[in-house]
Amino acid sequence: MLHTQGARPTLASVAAIAGVSRQTVSNVLNEPSRVQAETLAKVRAVLDEVNYRPHLAARQLRTKRSRVIGLRLEQVTDGINGAVLDRFLHAFTEGAQRHGYRISLFTADDDAGEIARYGELLDTTDIDAFVLTSTHHGDVRTEWLSARDIPFVTFGRPWALPHAAVSGTAPHAWVDVDGSFGTRSATEHLLSSGHRRIAFIGWPAGSGTGDERRLGWQQAMRTSGLGDDELDLLDLQTADGVNEGAAAIRSLTGHPAAPTAVVCASDSLALGALEASRSLGETFAVVGFDDTPVAAAIGLTSVAQPLIAVAEAALDLLIAQLEDRPDSTGHRLLPPRLVPRRSTATPPTTT
Amino acid sequence: MLHTQGARPTLASVAAIAGVSRQTVSNVLNEPSRVQAETLAKVRAVLDEVNYRPHLAARQLRTKRSRVIGLRLEQVTDGINGAVLDRFLHAFTEGAQRHGYRISLFTADDDAGEIARYGELLDTTDIDAFVLTSTHHGDVRTEWLSARDIPFVTFGRPWALPHAAVSGTAPHAWVDVDGSFGTRSATEHLLSSGHRRIAFIGWPAGSGTGDERRLGWQQAMRTSGLGDDELDLLDLQTADGVNEGAAAIRSLTGHPAAPTAVVCASDSLALGALEASRSLGETFAVVGFDDTPVAAAIGLTSVAQPLIAVAEAALDLLIAQLEDRPDSTGHRLLPPRLVPRRSTATPPTTT
Repeated sequence: MLHTQGARPTLASVAAIAGVSRQTVSNVLNEPSRVQAETLAKVRAVLDEVNYRPHLAARQLRTKRSRVIGLRLEQVTDGINGAVLDRFLHAFTEGAQRHGYRISLFTADDDAGEIARYGELLDTTDIDAFVLTSTHHGDVRTEWLSARDIPFVTFGRPWALPHAAVSGTAPHAWVDVDGSFGTRSATEHLLSSGHRRIAFIGWPAGSGTGDERRLGWQQAMRTSGLGDDELDLLDLQTADGVNEGAAAIRSLTGHPAAPTAVVCASDSLALGALEASRSLGETFAVVGFDDTPVAAAIGLTSVAQPLIAVAEAALDLLIAQLEDRPDSTGHRLLPPRLVPRRSTATPPTTT
Repeated sequence: MLHTQGARPTLASVAAIAGVSRQTVSNVLNEPSRVQAETLAKVRAVLDEVNYRPHLAARQLRTKRSRVIGLRLEQVTDGINGAVLDRFLHAFTEGAQRHGYRISLFTADDDAGEIARYGELLDTTDIDAFVLTSTHHGDVRTEWLSARDIPFVTFGRPWALPHAAVSGTAPHAWVDVDGSFGTRSATEHLLSSGHRRIAFIGWPAGSGTGDERRLGWQQAMRTSGLGDDELDLLDLQTADGVNEGAAAIRSLTGHPAAPTAVVCASDSLALGALEASRSLGETFAVVGFDDTPVAAAIGLTSVAQPLIAVAEAALDLLIAQLEDRPDSTGHRLLPPRLVPRRSTATPPTTT
């Protein structure tokens, strides 16, 4: 052992052991390209030997980077749909830590509150960047950050500018999951089991995420030969929630299109749909969205978002900005995956 | 309006408007007791008028407080039991924000990793305190922090010293939920519905939390007249998990004590128990623990931890330490609440 037990290695002690100047050790740590290969190898061997931990605070001061990423913790709703953002938070925090970043968490009641919080954090702390979740039409948060040149990435595409997003000229970095791909897969799964009249229980038109999820169902149904009039009949719109999903199913009794299956925009809606279906003695096949723990628990087929990949992509796009890499306003649209379970295992009882 | 639109008010501008010195404005902000009442009122009126926001960073520098609380985000397990800690995180973050504190999140694989992370954070950032979750026997994290005089509070009592904890000489601040109260309530609920032979599905002896939950069931069963031999027969021990709960129920077929109901140490175990019970065509009454979203979704009676109250108490004990108030090593043991649902709605079919 080259170092005394308990004494913390310093630049000076490393320099003494390696027989070089302190400046050389500093160069090895901070500007290795300026150091000769032989010296580099020798000093690095000593650094490893004494388990030298560069003082991060000093490094941060030098690079003017805090390595802190701000993230708003969204409010818990029914504990079902919120699980997705909690899982994203876990994945993002783990990924960020691997890259030497920490997460600073805050809460806000709405977009205005979130912006106020950005201002406060930027005023009072060192924060490198923000991650935004739940983007929506007319999202003023991204404008605010863009106008101030503050690095950020969104989980959710910029809905205000769908065409810009699709054509690759998105105004900021974003990661999203292809919702229409998810509901299209779900609908095709039901079609392949023999269902023909498949309803969609989703949110009223106007929400970016909800409209995307409706779109995938529409696409698959049109491909299967359904006309727009029939589609309209099968398109049930409601607020999100377990009770709302149950009410939608009850409204199907004596429905002119007599659907045998439903694709839902969320697991909350699907849970209500499944329970109402059972209590009516019906056997509607039901698919949810988000593959929450509740879906796994009750045997509900659901569409799973690849949250670890989302977190990794978001981190990658954020670090690209912080390091001034060219893809700093890039975006990634990731496909979700259908997880088939009991709720879609039986073919339609009426055709 | 006394101030120019867009110009940010400063000590100097406030002083100019109020007709006092900058030092007086500073005194009003930091040492109001040194300022005459009339001057205080005048300056405060100007501060309000111009919406002066004291520069928190400067204040932090002066008070040597960062107003940052570190918290380890625990790994997601089956997405069922983890929901409790996610809900605690939400409640704690919201409470902390109301008190002007932010949460710095990190992850770790185990206690040693968590301690390494404490060291790194303390070395490199300003952090005021830590919140620890999932305390257990021989928890080295609390020793490490105590030895260094670092403010912290635990969600979970100090299991290594149960007697000290109970007698009020706990070595550190903690908040916990009274698990034995919860399972006692659950067992009494079943007894009052006519069940007599009630099994317990819990974790092997040795985990503080698990032993507490077993204790409450034992207490209620003894009070109902059961002897220790019968209790031993009804005490099923297994690892946590949905499959484990199902296996425990299947082991009850032809069981000598012929139980009609089970109290479980977790919702994961209870979910497995309920599903296995249904697939066997049995009608075991089942109670879970933690009142997770899954319990609500499947109609499972469960014991709910008062997580908002836990978060408030933890924050209160933490701030007491940071402000050197006398109850800085206090503790709070909060009672949980039984949430009855369908899974315990039917009386026993055999007696």
